[in-house]
Amino acid sequence: MRVNKLREIWAEGGTAVNGWLHIPSSWSAEVMAHAGWDSVTVDLQHGLAGYQATVTMFQAIGMTDAVPMGRSTWNDPAQIMRLLDAGAYGIICPMINTRAEAEAFVGACRYPPMGYRSLGPTRASVYAGADYAQHANETIVTLAMVETQQALDNLEDILATPGLDGVFVGPGDLGLSLTGQTGMDMREPALAEALAHIGKTTRENGRIAGIWTPTPDIAKQMMALGYQFITISTDTRLLSTAAKNIVEQFKR
Amino acid sequence: MRVNKLREIWAEGGTAVNGWLHIPSSWSAEVMAHAGWDSVTVDLQHGLAGYQATVTMFQAIGMTDAVPMGRSTWNDPAQIMRLLDAGAYGIICPMINTRAEAEAFVGACRYPPMGYRSLGPTRASVYAGADYAQHANETIVTLAMVETQQALDNLEDILATPGLDGVFVGPGDLGLSLTGQTGMDMREPALAEALAHIGKTTRENGRIAGIWTPTPDIAKQMMALGYQFITISTDTRLLSTAAKNIVEQFKR
Amino acid sequence: MRVNKLREIWAEGGTAVNGWLHIPSSWSAEVMAHAGWDSVTVDLQHGLAGYQATVTMFQAIGMTDAVPMGRSTWNDPAQIMRLLDAGAYGIICPMINTRAEAEAFVGACRYPPMGYRSLGPTRASVYAGADYAQHANETIVTLAMVETQQALDNLEDILATPGLDGVFVGPGDLGLSLTGQTGMDMREPALAEALAHIGKTTRENGRIAGIWTPTPDIAKQMMALGYQFITISTDTRLLSTAAKNIVEQFKR
Amino acid sequence: MRVNKLREIWAEGGTAVNGWLHIPSSWSAEVMAHAGWDSVTVDLQHGLAGYQATVTMFQAIGMTDAVPMGRSTWNDPAQIMRLLDAGAYGIICPMINTRAEAEAFVGACRYPPMGYRSLGPTRASVYAGADYAQHANETIVTLAMVETQQALDNLEDILATPGLDGVFVGPGDLGLSLTGQTGMDMREPALAEALAHIGKTTRENGRIAGIWTPTPDIAKQMMALGYQFITISTDTRLLSTAAKNIVEQFKR
Amino acid sequence: MRVNKLREIWAEGGTAVNGWLHIPSSWSAEVMAHAGWDSVTVDLQHGLAGYQATVTMFQAIGMTDAVPMGRSTWNDPAQIMRLLDAGAYGIICPMINTRAEAEAFVGACRYPPMGYRSLGPTRASVYAGADYAQHANETIVTLAMVETQQALDNLEDILATPGLDGVFVGPGDLGLSLTGQTGMDMREPALAEALAHIGKTTRENGRIAGIWTPTPDIAKQMMALGYQFITISTDTRLLSTAAKNIVEQFKR
Amino acid sequence: MRVNKLREIWAEGGTAVNGWLHIPSSWSAEVMAHAGWDSVTVDLQHGLAGYQATVTMFQAIGMTDAVPMGRSTWNDPAQIMRLLDAGAYGIICPMINTRAEAEAFVGACRYPPMGYRSLGPTRASVYAGADYAQHANETIVTLAMVETQQALDNLEDILATPGLDGVFVGPGDLGLSLTGQTGMDMREPALAEALAHIGKTTRENGRIAGIWTPTPDIAKQMMALGYQFITISTDTRLLSTAAKNIVEQFKR
Repeated sequence: MRVNKLREIWAEGGTAVNGWLHIPSSWSAEVMAHAGWDSVTVDLQHGLAGYQATVTMFQAIGMTDAVPMGRSTWNDPAQIMRLLDAGAYGIICPMINTRAEAEAFVGACRYPPMGYRSLGPTRASVYAGADYAQHANETIVTLAMVETQQALDNLEDILATPGLDGVFVGPGDLGLSLTGQTGMDMREPALAEALAHIGKTTRENGRIAGIWTPTPDIAKQMMALGYQFITISTDTRLLSTAAKNIVEQFKR
Repeated sequence: MRVNKLREIWAEGGTAVNGWLHIPSSWSAEVMAHAGWDSVTVDLQHGLAGYQATVTMFQAIGMTDAVPMGRSTWNDPAQIMRLLDAGAYGIICPMINTRAEAEAFVGACRYPPMGYRSLGPTRASVYAGADYAQHANETIVTLAMVETQQALDNLEDILATPGLDGVFVGPGDLGLSLTGQTGMDMREPALAEALAHIGKTTRENGRIAGIWTPTPDIAKQMMALGYQFITISTDTRLLSTAAKNIVEQFKR
Repeated sequence: MRVNKLREIWAEGGTAVNGWLHIPSSWSAEVMAHAGWDSVTVDLQHGLAGYQATVTMFQAIGMTDAVPMGRSTWNDPAQIMRLLDAGAYGIICPMINTRAEAEAFVGACRYPPMGYRSLGPTRASVYAGADYAQHANETIVTLAMVETQQALDNLEDILATPGLDGVFVGPGDLGLSLTGQTGMDMREPALAEALAHIGKTTRENGRIAGIWTPTPDIAKQMMALGYQFITISTDTRLLSTAAKNIVEQFKR
Repeated sequence: MRVNKLREIWAEGGTAVNGWLHIPSSWSAEVMAHAGWDSVTVDLQHGLAGYQATVTMFQAIGMTDAVPMGRSTWNDPAQIMRLLDAGAYGIICPMINTRAEAEAFVGACRYPPMGYRSLGPTRASVYAGADYAQHANETIVTLAMVETQQALDNLEDILATPGLDGVFVGPGDLGLSLTGQTGMDMREPALAEALAHIGKTTRENGRIAGIWTPTPDIAKQMMALGYQFITISTDTRLLSTAAKNIVEQFKR
Repeated sequence: MRVNKLREIWAEGGTAVNGWLHIPSSWSAEVMAHAGWDSVTVDLQHGLAGYQATVTMFQAIGMTDAVPMGRSTWNDPAQIMRLLDAGAYGIICPMINTRAEAEAFVGACRYPPMGYRSLGPTRASVYAGADYAQHANETIVTLAMVETQQALDNLEDILATPGLDGVFVGPGDLGLSLTGQTGMDMREPALAEALAHIGKTTRENGRIAGIWTPTPDIAKQMMALGYQFITISTDTRLLSTAAKNIVEQFKR
Repeated sequence: MRVNKLREIWAEGGTAVNGWLHIPSSWSAEVMAHAGWDSVTVDLQHGLAGYQATVTMFQAIGMTDAVPMGRSTWNDPAQIMRLLDAGAYGIICPMINTRAEAEAFVGACRYPPMGYRSLGPTRASVYAGADYAQHANETIVTLAMVETQQALDNLEDILATPGLDGVFVGPGDLGLSLTGQTGMDMREPALAEALAHIGKTTRENGRIAGIWTPTPDIAKQMMALGYQFITISTDTRLLSTAAKNIVEQFKR
């Protein structure tokens, strides 16, 4: 079975940098997959791609060694299983606030007896190899999103979920939960403190901490806090910012 | 009928900056249309969008005041008319090397008696208004691509084509024709000289010179040469470059 | 932030007329959005559009001042949030039978602390403006569907749900629940009585009553009963009826 | 091989009524195909459907006995052959002005030795039956569009083209050619005279005259002039008009 | 209302053979529907088709008398109702382990008072006829998947669910549940015994037993065990195997 | 630049076996690309894939070392260039009957000064590498279809076209041209003789002879005649035949 490059990076104590796909197009996905990210994630929650586009995006990513990941729209086993069957090598699941939710999430990603994933890895076994079903449980990465005060309170309990590889912080939602502000300012004290706590606690529990960040500078700060799976920006923001800059430079 | 903002800019002697769409997605098109470009062009020749995606891209652009344009794949009247019927407010047509080709191109964009465009502006009359058919001939912009030695030789003849608004330089193809090199180096003397000549000649003939450029700096150089319709980069290049920079900044 | 025209109409005590989209096409959506409706709703429950088509339909609607709405397939927070992120300015949610269900529905449409909507208004902030997240809670319209005897029994309780703007009657399902008939005859006494009761009760509770109707005549009757958000027919019915009439007129 | 119902109607001296598809959706196509039209035509010239959508529209039509037709974007043999291979039972070809153009068009629709159509009826042989290739030449309907003064001048020559079934009038383009007006007023004397002439001449030459009309009344007038294949309105116009009427009736 | 051919086959004590669609294409669906299967099922769980493609696949199937079926991704009433509204004449629902789950599934497929399906059979009433709503409850087939030890334990209880037509065995998941192996070897004793038990028990309870099988030989064995709805292979496997065989035969 | 495996095979005197794609789906394309073919060709002429689907099919093929090829709908430079820009490593062009047509075809595939291909290998340079433009002329394979008596008469002249790699026989069209029959019987004497002649003549002229064949047996016969690029069947035929066989085996 094709290895999961993320596991190799983490086995060496390294940090992976992850691209974030909001544009529902196999072409932009192919371009992103060639940009040097260790993995690229189709974000079905806040991105614009539905299931069908996601499949073509995974196919386009398959030409590279960037690991194809999916963020599900919710803790929805049916959708999570579909993403895995389509070749996702990891799932980031939103709004995991309790141990029970974490177990439900992980269970959807693991074949029995570890979980309750249904057997039928139609595209996955083409992408990964004919022995996919035997090795999927050890290969697929599972990251539970921590984005509320409640999740923060339950952090160690969530981290102890068998089969869970780590957590992923949505700083926008977490900041909104902690501060009531929508500005996603990661230097805001209450949020900053929580981010440090999550990074430290996760590492101490031998799991992977992941997070979304807006810039490489903040990404490096998060790496310093122990985060080992770091998303920077989105395809849409990169495109929008670059275009606005170009126009401004020309018109200036 | 909705005015063509490009004509307004040019009437005041101004220069328009144009975005270039290669990603076949109405979402990336919407993002680009909001970035400040005066117009955005769906490039059907070297981009990845087919006709159906192009329609949704024109729709997404329609929310903004960026002018929707299309580059046709060829001097193909059927396709040109479809793009116009779908709401394109201008056409950039590749590989116009002779006056006869320019006339065929312009004729496809104009209703009789000025041309031979077929009547049926299905979406155009929704985008532009019910009086579209009466005013389309004066509103639609036509730009003939000059990208070979032959076109250069016939430049003044092409510029004199009735109903043609101007020319558009493809520096890659023109450079390849003039120098045999595929590198698209716009400082290469033979190409640089031709670019200056086209800018000057077009302006002297009262027409609009347009061009594709890779960066704002070169765009400004072209403006100094008289170009009044300047494309900078493509959505794909902007995304690819921005992503590679981010990854590199992080990994450095 | 772009205002929600529906709120303006209701603030003046007016009644909004709403178009209903079943055809999965951005073109028919654009045509409908230009027909004079105050809002148009992509019906994901009984219509033929999936998520990806819905996005392009919202884009096409964005060119007009018709308010883009979505009817979700179910009381499904993941889907509701996706529709909102894609630019829906209101959600009609099927089969709300209890106060708890109403609260779950409204919570999915409101950012904390009013609800539990996840932060990431990718397209919404392009459609509505950069300050979308600050004002979304007051802008997005939430209508809970009342379509069973149980919902009728719980009507006042449902109407008292904080953050709920009103209810929307599905006369087909309500009639089936009340009478056991599938014919959707709105003059049937048990149904007619319920419709009058809902219109009156909703208005007395300071909320908005909405309903689907087959014809302008019945729509006016509903307006007389206090309904302020009235859907008439569907794109499919309009097209089918018009086509059948034309053929019949010709063949007669 | 599945019979072509149009040929049966014409064999009995009857007149066929044809629906016109501009919405790129298999669902609206299915709805139109069930409305009673003898045939329905996907208009690739002024409609919004590209090739891929057209295939699904032909499939949806296949459930009914309405004959699937295509209007090509141009006298383009490659596209015409694709439409036929996808199951079109007839082609309406725009802008046929000369006998040579008519011959080129007909040749694209007929297998050798009658024409130069390439053999490979992939979907056609599923829709029509395994013996499609043997009978296609006698089954497929070919209608050349007469929409200019030049075509009018060459009418009898065009009608004499071997293998051509008839002509189809585009009154918008023909009116524009004859009168210089874009209003498509079919009562305008010069146009009205031409329409009468075409109907009469075509019938005298034993061929089928077809035409697009906006209303059943005008359609009946054209039938009286000898036209035997009559299109009335388009799906888009039917939908748009019906929706505007409904809104107006309600708001009145 | 169009009859459900499956019910006719079963009424005569016969066995239906079912094709399984994983390729998200209306063309491959049309080809499969013409291959002689009594029914064809779009598998949304492990196949690659999302909702939008599924609609076009149902349309393509509609040209034939093969019964269109859907396997839902989960016991999800919203999705099940959408598939039915789109014209599915039967639903196979994964992972039904208890009587309560079976009742929830069946309820989603039946209009009140038998269930809680919402009224709005948009495409179904075109495919099946205008009287669809009156007869749907007796026409739509419901098959609950038995694929765990728990389901096996609850088999008779599940079979007794009012309105349930039968069960459908997923041998891969059932084998994994019973044996811990992913190989889907239907001769493995524990699995073989269970398959025999299900066939026998279901028949004794007057319900229909269905199953997926890899080959015609195993299909016949299952028929001998009492199974009356037998899927053989998938479109993907058929294509993949045939292609590999061809290449191997040539290279040998 | 990524090598073209076909050229490697031919450099060693070998024969390549080619898969033929008619299903417009990136999933069936991915399955075919993994079946062992040396190359797979998206057939835009008689297949069901339009341009947009073709791009996703090329992406799916890109994961394997099967060479992505395209058959154009016609000798249409605009389309041929688009296929190349999308990553096709070879073009099969229909209906090349004269040397002039062959030169026009080859010119569309070669950058100046060898041809007139326009510079802009958007996806090709991602698939093949950043140095694509420098090496494309030597890498892209060009095969002209010989499918009429006229082409047969001009065979040596066509084969002498500079830059042309070889010819490809469409036995259906060639048989129809030579015998007037649509049955595509490759044992029919006139056709068989022509096939032998083409194989021999092409090899003697140092070019590659290619052909479509229905079965491995006939493919081997063609190899014996000197053919070095052999297509066997199509995805549609493989699927249809396999499905019909399965059903028949079960029902027998």
